[in-house]
Amino acid sequence: MNTKIKETSSPVIVHNPHLCGLKDDILYHFNLGTGTHNLPALFGDVRFVCVGGSAWRMKEFIEYIAAELGMQDPQSDYPNICAGTDRYAMYKVGPVLSVSHGIGIPSISIMLHELIKLLHHARCTDVTIIRIGTSGGIGLEPGTVVITKQSVDATFAPKFEQLILGELVVRDTDLDYNLAQELLQCSKELGQFNTVVGNTMCTLDFYEGQGRLDGAFCLYTEKDKHKYLTKAKEAGVCNIEMESTVFAAMCKLSGLRAAVVCTTLLDRLKGDQLSSSQDELHSYEQRPQILVGHYIKKQLKALKALQG
Amino acid sequence: MNTKIKETSSPVIVHNPHLCGLKDDILYHFNLGTGTHNLPALFGDVRFVCVGGSAWRMKEFIEYIAAELGMQDPQSDYPNICAGTDRYAMYKVGPVLSVSHGIGIPSISIMLHELIKLLHHARCTDVTIIRIGTSGGIGLEPGTVVITKQSVDATFAPKFEQLILGELVVRDTDLDYNLAQELLQCSKELGQFNTVVGNTMCTLDFYEGQGRLDGAFCLYTEKDKHKYLTKAKEAGVCNIEMESTVFAAMCKLSGLRAAVVCTTLLDRLKGDQLSSSQDELHSYEQRPQILVGHYIKKQLKALKALQG
Repeated sequence: MNTKIKETSSPVIVHNPHLCGLKDDILYHFNLGTGTHNLPALFGDVRFVCVGGSAWRMKEFIEYIAAELGMQDPQSDYPNICAGTDRYAMYKVGPVLSVSHGIGIPSISIMLHELIKLLHHARCTDVTIIRIGTSGGIGLEPGTVVITKQSVDATFAPKFEQLILGELVVRDTDLDYNLAQELLQCSKELGQFNTVVGNTMCTLDFYEGQGRLDGAFCLYTEKDKHKYLTKAKEAGVCNIEMESTVFAAMCKLSGLRAAVVCTTLLDRLKGDQLSSSQDELHSYEQRPQILVGHYIKKQLKALKALQG
Repeated sequence: MNTKIKETSSPVIVHNPHLCGLKDDILYHFNLGTGTHNLPALFGDVRFVCVGGSAWRMKEFIEYIAAELGMQDPQSDYPNICAGTDRYAMYKVGPVLSVSHGIGIPSISIMLHELIKLLHHARCTDVTIIRIGTSGGIGLEPGTVVITKQSVDATFAPKFEQLILGELVVRDTDLDYNLAQELLQCSKELGQFNTVVGNTMCTLDFYEGQGRLDGAFCLYTEKDKHKYLTKAKEAGVCNIEMESTVFAAMCKLSGLRAAVVCTTLLDRLKGDQLSSSQDELHSYEQRPQILVGHYIKKQLKALKALQG
């Protein structure tokens, strides 16, 4: 497959006429702002953004990608750009930004509003954004990596519903088809672990919302759970996580090329609690970053070749 | 007002027959478990649990309450009990547990499932739980503290809706009336800041979901925003945050005596971005912990008098 480089550049789009009227735009949850930081100087060269729930994992990712790209800085421990707050953590190496988003739709939604404004203010173009995360698999060997084809809600519908001014608004959850295929190709080139392209279900709750039997409350039977997960499987759902619908919806609205790459920590058809060892789980968790690291390296190489 | 101490003890209730069948119960997001930790020995004496979004603030709270109760340990920096994970942070001093929950309903919901199981496994009784947080006020001076009377959703209805196995389940969001009144009385005794009892609106999003004009997307006018917030005010809403409905619903189901105490950082009828200084904001943020600290001290004193 060819790695295509576009000849015209795509900006990061905000849809908010009120932003022009702001004297300063304070990105409160990042502890950054247009009045206090030179965002184009700090972030103007960003081409790849990787996001994930855990701040520790996003620090690990920036260390990994720095080594992969030969951009390690022996003088620096990759400082957290958002060190003034504990809401989110952010790290940067060359054209790669790594940002944590916490757990769940509301948490990633705040981060994405401020990230999209940051990339817009910084005048970044042609940005690719990839969520790397963990998930529960359905009918897959633990450790299988799922590249999301379509993100669906808990009723298996490919949509993100939200209340705006108390009214229901429904948004698409399409992700970039070509990017998913390019990532699948990268996994083939690596040949280190199984990767599939399939639907990802996004829920608002980890226990009852995903049919688990081990939460504080569970008013359904094991049979009910299996019936639900089997229906999910029949609808093409390969894995379950908690952020992909709003991620897909917001990235699409802002013109970001987006993908979701999650490892599966267990097969939910076989259980709810993790049975793999700590070492195995850590190895599974690293797979999305290895895959995305390979993709970024390949893209930058192609870009360099094109630029001469 | 009398501080009443109950003569019969109330356990922390789980509603899940499947838990009995688990060999070990792994509280995955706390990095704790029944097979690896002696939960009754570690947590059996807990009577008060304070939860809040930020891990830093919950560390600050445990330091504050330790000083208030004269339980400082000059040898210890209050270690994070969940140090093996970065999902949540947990601190303990005597009968007080302080736990962070991240941002939004999904994030606090995972924490509460595992916290309720933890308190249940530890055989705790008569537990009072209070969420201390920040919020946007409606028609209140910044820095006013709101004790939640009723938690309502973005349509101003006092209910928490969730999808369980793809089906809609609706739960009550009642909080403890007497506890709210006792906390209001504590504020009067302190006389340091304004405190009101009123409804709290809980949303799934911070920007569009709360009618802000400064997100990456805003497809409504300032007039639409004001109309919505005015309707909220008419429905008795004093402040807006992102966790109270599921907090109220889950605490009620598990028999926990629960309250929500949030400071307001701004008046949303007057703007969306914070205009107070960093020092003022920090002072506002401390108010819920001062109030709850006074309440806990008073309760422990009454308990001691009763026992002694």
